[in-house]
Amino acid sequence: MIYAELISIGDELLSGLTIDTNSAFIAQQFESIGIFSRWKTTVGDDLDDICGALESALARADVITLTGGLGPTHDDMTKKALCRHFNVGTKFYPEILEKMRLRFERRGYPFPIINRNQAEYPEVAELMHNSAGSAQGMIFKVGEKQIFVMPGVPREMKAITTEEILPRLMNQTSHRMVRMEIHTTGVPESQLFEQIHEIFEAEPAVRVAYLPKHTGVTIRLSLADEAEASARAILSNLVEKVTRRMPEGVFGSGNDTLPGVVGELLKLRHLKVATAESCTGGLIASMITDVSGSSDYFETGFVTYADKVKQSLLGVPPDVLKNEGAVSEATIRHMLAGALERTSADYAIAVSGIAGPTGGTPEKPVGLVWIGVGRKDDFVVKRYQFGRDRVMNKEMTAMAALNQLRIKLQQDFVGCI
Amino acid sequence: MIYAELISIGDELLSGLTIDTNSAFIAQQFESIGIFSRWKTTVGDDLDDICGALESALARADVITLTGGLGPTHDDMTKKALCRHFNVGTKFYPEILEKMRLRFERRGYPFPIINRNQAEYPEVAELMHNSAGSAQGMIFKVGEKQIFVMPGVPREMKAITTEEILPRLMNQTSHRMVRMEIHTTGVPESQLFEQIHEIFEAEPAVRVAYLPKHTGVTIRLSLADEAEASARAILSNLVEKVTRRMPEGVFGSGNDTLPGVVGELLKLRHLKVATAESCTGGLIASMITDVSGSSDYFETGFVTYADKVKQSLLGVPPDVLKNEGAVSEATIRHMLAGALERTSADYAIAVSGIAGPTGGTPEKPVGLVWIGVGRKDDFVVKRYQFGRDRVMNKEMTAMAALNQLRIKLQQDFVGCI
Repeated sequence: MIYAELISIGDELLSGLTIDTNSAFIAQQFESIGIFSRWKTTVGDDLDDICGALESALARADVITLTGGLGPTHDDMTKKALCRHFNVGTKFYPEILEKMRLRFERRGYPFPIINRNQAEYPEVAELMHNSAGSAQGMIFKVGEKQIFVMPGVPREMKAITTEEILPRLMNQTSHRMVRMEIHTTGVPESQLFEQIHEIFEAEPAVRVAYLPKHTGVTIRLSLADEAEASARAILSNLVEKVTRRMPEGVFGSGNDTLPGVVGELLKLRHLKVATAESCTGGLIASMITDVSGSSDYFETGFVTYADKVKQSLLGVPPDVLKNEGAVSEATIRHMLAGALERTSADYAIAVSGIAGPTGGTPEKPVGLVWIGVGRKDDFVVKRYQFGRDRVMNKEMTAMAALNQLRIKLQQDFVGCI
Repeated sequence: MIYAELISIGDELLSGLTIDTNSAFIAQQFESIGIFSRWKTTVGDDLDDICGALESALARADVITLTGGLGPTHDDMTKKALCRHFNVGTKFYPEILEKMRLRFERRGYPFPIINRNQAEYPEVAELMHNSAGSAQGMIFKVGEKQIFVMPGVPREMKAITTEEILPRLMNQTSHRMVRMEIHTTGVPESQLFEQIHEIFEAEPAVRVAYLPKHTGVTIRLSLADEAEASARAILSNLVEKVTRRMPEGVFGSGNDTLPGVVGELLKLRHLKVATAESCTGGLIASMITDVSGSSDYFETGFVTYADKVKQSLLGVPPDVLKNEGAVSEATIRHMLAGALERTSADYAIAVSGIAGPTGGTPEKPVGLVWIGVGRKDDFVVKRYQFGRDRVMNKEMTAMAALNQLRIKLQQDFVGCI
């Protein structure tokens, strides 16, 4: 197994004003060819710290990347650290300077002399071509260990990683990493774990990660194998088993999104859906229309935020609003009926709840939401209790509503979900 | 000077599938109270590596944060590592378990026993309250040095950092970093720079960063000073100058959001707005209703995604749709008029465009959007050309529409914006 350590250099990374996405990119690229990152370190533009990080890394890893701290305005701290570490001077490459000068000339810019240091590199460095910029990549060898050095500009880092580093490392590894994701909603992480973890016990080589968000949990399966096809078959099998075990919770895998899955189910049968939203304020319609081609199955959305608009646009009777309140099963049933009568949709979604943070009462606390889905005379209406955060409540309501519609569509047309 | 080292724990961070935004947040918060992060380290859910990282950090830093590796399905590697490092066992807190059980009960979920480990903590740990989840924060002291431990879920990490850690550290430092942000929309970064950069030349100690997103550019000003009040005065003055120079582009500062600013303008004058959306599919209504209290000024949203619904719900004449098309100034004017006639709103927003990626023609390419705002017989309708990405087009349209309404409201009631 080849282990990597990724070092990111830059004051702006340490202060947190720039988020380090470079090392995530490198780690993913490495993992896809079976090289695993075991440590990541971030240090500032500081000679001692760069040298210290490099020494620690050489004690632990086979492949080391250093990213950042190159380029005309960075004082070339990274090159200085490498010269110090290897106890060498720099070498001047006139052909690199000339190429740079020509590029500036072609664009009609004057050539700032500060660029001269872009043509100087530590004596023992082997250079790697940078197709996206002027700072060249570098390779250093220490016995069997390899150090790859790149500028921190993401575009340049990506060019050097994919065009120069990966081809060199690929024939040093045989492992390949295969990944699959299962997307769920409406089931808490711990309950999900209890219900499905024994499925994974049959495949102990598969790494399982639960990635929870308030809108749902994604389960990520990873398997490293020399034979990519067999790894793929093992993971597909697990995805299928989990999906069959939890048909109400699992809405998709891979690149599936819940609005996309619902859209496919509707499109397949030439059906249309209309929305009648109160507490989500248009979010459900917006999620449906995030999907390209959604105009095939979505034509109308009502955002009825006030009681009198539930009356005028959807025909909810005033006495229902008065006696049961806007957040009630009865109101939802009238919203569904109204949306179906006043549009040509086959299915409707209706939601009404108390998004918060204000507006709750002891009987109807913040986070209480009623959600209904259905077709003419055939509604499924459920009560949910979400949390205190307004925007999170909107998002959880929208996900629950779309999932309720997905389950209903699957029941109506497959007989079981 | 107090130095910090930030340790992030998690296999998913090492593999690069999750990007570490937590340590950026912590670093920024620390910097605001004069604590500087000198190293960041990321290790996996591995006992040896967590212990190794902690030992290195204790040799270098005064304040150490450990984030991640807590929670029911993470094997509690972080707690195990701390028990090993301090050579102690765990202590069980029955009151924490009971609180958790009650929360599950309230939501009507069964209580999985796997959660029991959320009530066990290393004997020498002082606990910190987690207002956003069940895994408590922990503090360990090693002489003068302090170790703060938090779960990796960003919401929980943020709650513990701001509510527990910062108040404890604040009285140990004297430097204060004051930051202010100016939010703009609709002006490209380079144009913004050209128009305002000379304003900042008078205050060379202020660091200026331009943070561009597709929905707008935020300008962040930072100034470190022992006298917080004088730093605050300098930055406030700059914010005011920039706002006055670019009243159409600058919509707010600090925690202002565009829907929030628009909401304030409406509420102040007891006005109501209605939305009539085509290409944004409900996003504008959803953004308006993200603001708590929006029911004071928002009652009705129409999502008219199909031509015939623009006709039936808003009264756009069929011949206008046929001759001018749904994406046209004429259609927008009828959508505005319809929304105002059919609701009790004082102002309306209407948008229609080609979100893409399909549906474009040479005359009406993907990204073409018409946006109108106004009150009875007084409309401002403009044409925009955005890009090729569907979701980005929706977001840019929604921001442009809300900004157009903000400018109109300011013109109508202040005389000038």
